[in-house]
Amino acid sequence: MKLQDERTSKVMVWLRGLQDRLCQSFGEGLGGHFLRDAWARPAGEGLQGGGVTAVQEGGPVMERAGVAFSDVRGSQLPPAATARNPHLAGRPYHAMGVSVVMHPLSPHAPTAHMNVRYFSAGDVWWFGGGFDLTPYIPYEEDIVYWHRAARAACDAVSPALYPIARKHCDDYFFLRHRGEARGIGGIFYDDLNEQSPDTPVSWEQGFELMQRVGNAYHDAYLEVVNRRKDTPGTDRERAWQLYRRGRYVEFNLVFDRGTLFGLQSGGRTEAILVSMPPQVSWSYRSPEPELDERLLPYLTQLRGKDWLA
Amino acid sequence: MKLQDERTSKVMVWLRGLQDRLCQSFGEGLGGHFLRDAWARPAGEGLQGGGVTAVQEGGPVMERAGVAFSDVRGSQLPPAATARNPHLAGRPYHAMGVSVVMHPLSPHAPTAHMNVRYFSAGDVWWFGGGFDLTPYIPYEEDIVYWHRAARAACDAVSPALYPIARKHCDDYFFLRHRGEARGIGGIFYDDLNEQSPDTPVSWEQGFELMQRVGNAYHDAYLEVVNRRKDTPGTDRERAWQLYRRGRYVEFNLVFDRGTLFGLQSGGRTEAILVSMPPQVSWSYRSPEPELDERLLPYLTQLRGKDWLA
Repeated sequence: MKLQDERTSKVMVWLRGLQDRLCQSFGEGLGGHFLRDAWARPAGEGLQGGGVTAVQEGGPVMERAGVAFSDVRGSQLPPAATARNPHLAGRPYHAMGVSVVMHPLSPHAPTAHMNVRYFSAGDVWWFGGGFDLTPYIPYEEDIVYWHRAARAACDAVSPALYPIARKHCDDYFFLRHRGEARGIGGIFYDDLNEQSPDTPVSWEQGFELMQRVGNAYHDAYLEVVNRRKDTPGTDRERAWQLYRRGRYVEFNLVFDRGTLFGLQSGGRTEAILVSMPPQVSWSYRSPEPELDERLLPYLTQLRGKDWLA
Repeated sequence: MKLQDERTSKVMVWLRGLQDRLCQSFGEGLGGHFLRDAWARPAGEGLQGGGVTAVQEGGPVMERAGVAFSDVRGSQLPPAATARNPHLAGRPYHAMGVSVVMHPLSPHAPTAHMNVRYFSAGDVWWFGGGFDLTPYIPYEEDIVYWHRAARAACDAVSPALYPIARKHCDDYFFLRHRGEARGIGGIFYDDLNEQSPDTPVSWEQGFELMQRVGNAYHDAYLEVVNRRKDTPGTDRERAWQLYRRGRYVEFNLVFDRGTLFGLQSGGRTEAILVSMPPQVSWSYRSPEPELDERLLPYLTQLRGKDWLA
C-alpha cells in the first residue's frame, strides 16, 4: 500500500469514529437521536465520493445538530481550498472531513461549531480545522474552560500553534456589518503541513492535532452543555436567543467561505445548511437590550482577550 | 434652479409621498402601524444624506414590513451602482429610492418586494426598480393579477419594457443552490435612460415609469393581501411558511446585490435587513412535502411562463 493511501485510510477511520462518538454522546447520551443520511455522488461528474450527514432535530437538549462526514475526490482542486499552495489549484485532490454545528434548545447553552479536514493532492497533504463557541447568555467559567481545552489540544503538538490559531479564529468569525464577533472564539488553522512558515508540522503531528482538536471539542462542549442544559430559558430569554441566532445565519450566509463555496459549487444544499439554526427571528431592535448588554462585551471589546492569563 | 436640481426635487417629493401612502395603506389601513426611524449621516464621511426607515412588526396582517426612503450623496459612485455606465464609477453621485418588503402573517398571503430608485452623476441620470411576489400557498388568480398590473405599469410608458423587465426579474430572483425561483416574478429594470439600448426613455418617461411601478405595487399588492389576509393558516401551514421563509433569507444574504453591497459598504444594518422575515426556520427535510408539491411547480417549470397569454 502506498504511503499516501495508508495515511488517507488512517484519517478516514478516525474521522468516521469521531462522527460516531459525537452522534452517540450528543444523541443518545443526551436523550436524543441522530438520523443518518448517507449519500454518494457517482463517478464522472468531476467530483466523486460520498458521506454521511447525521442530523438531530427537536431533541430534548439539541434543538438542531448536524455532524457531517464527507470523503470526496475531485479532478480539479478549487482555488479556495488552499491559500498557501496556489500552484495545486486545478490538480486532482482528495478531501475528507467532519463538520459539526450544534444548536441547543436552552439559551443558557452555547452553540458550537467544529471542523477537521484533510486534503491531499498528489504527494502534497495538509490539515485544517478548529472550533469556536457562540454563547447567548454568557458564563465566564465556560469561556475560560473552552479556551483552556483549545490551548491544551494545540500545546500537545506545538506551543507555537495556539496563539496563531486563536488569532486566526478571532479574525475569521467576525461580522463586519455588525461590528461583532460571532462568539467568544476558539481555534482555527488551515494549510498546515511541513512547509507552514510559522508552525511546520510533520504528517504525524498534523494527524495528532486533528485527533486532539476533535476530541477536545467532544469533551469540552459536552461538559459545557451538561452544565447548562437543565437551565431552561424564560420566554423572554428564548425570544432573544432566536433573535441572536439571526447573527449566526448572517455570518454563515454572508461571510463563511465554506458555506458559500459549497452553495456556489453545487454541493448538497441540505447538508451545507445543516449549520442553520432551527428557529430564528429578525427584528428592527433587539427584543431584550439588557441581555445584549451582558453578551456584547464578550463579542466586542473583550474579543481577543487572553482568558488563560 | 438647475434642471438636475428640479428633477431631483420632483423625484424626492414623489418618493416621500409614496412612502407615506404605503405606510398608511399597509399600516392603519390594515389595522397596524409603522414606526418611523429618521436617520442622517453627517457630511464628511464620503457619503452623506439621510432617510426614514418605516417598520411595522407584529401587526394584525403584516407580521413584519419595512418601507425605507433614502436620499444619499456620495463622493465616489460604487462600481456596482451602474453596469451600463462604468465610466461614471468614482464620480460624485446622488441616489434616492424607496425599498419595500412586506411579510404577511397568513401563509395564504404572499410576501412582496418593491424598489424604485433614481441616480444622478453630473448631468447623467438613470432610473431602476421593479417588484416581485413570493407566494407560499399559491393562488393562480393572484399570480395573473400581479403580472397584469406589472405589464400595465410598463406598457403605459413603452410596450418594449415589459418583456425585458419580466425576464430580468426571473433571471435575477433565482436561488441557484436550490434550483428555485424566489417567487413568481414581476418586473426588474436598471440603468434606464436615453442611452438604454433596448428601451431608451426620456427623463419624463423614466419618472413616469417610477410612479406607475410604485403605484402598481401599492394597488396590486393591497388587492392580493385583502383577498387573503382573513384566511388564517393551520399550524402545519404556518410551520411550513416559516420553513419557506428560509429561502427568502438565503436569497437576500447570498445573492441579492443590494443587500450585500449595503452590508459590505457600511450601510445601516438594521435598515438593510428590514427585508428579513420576522420568524424563520430551517430543517433538513421540508415539514410539509404536499405543500411543496403545490408551490414548487410555480418556482421551477412554470418560471418564465406568460401568465397573460
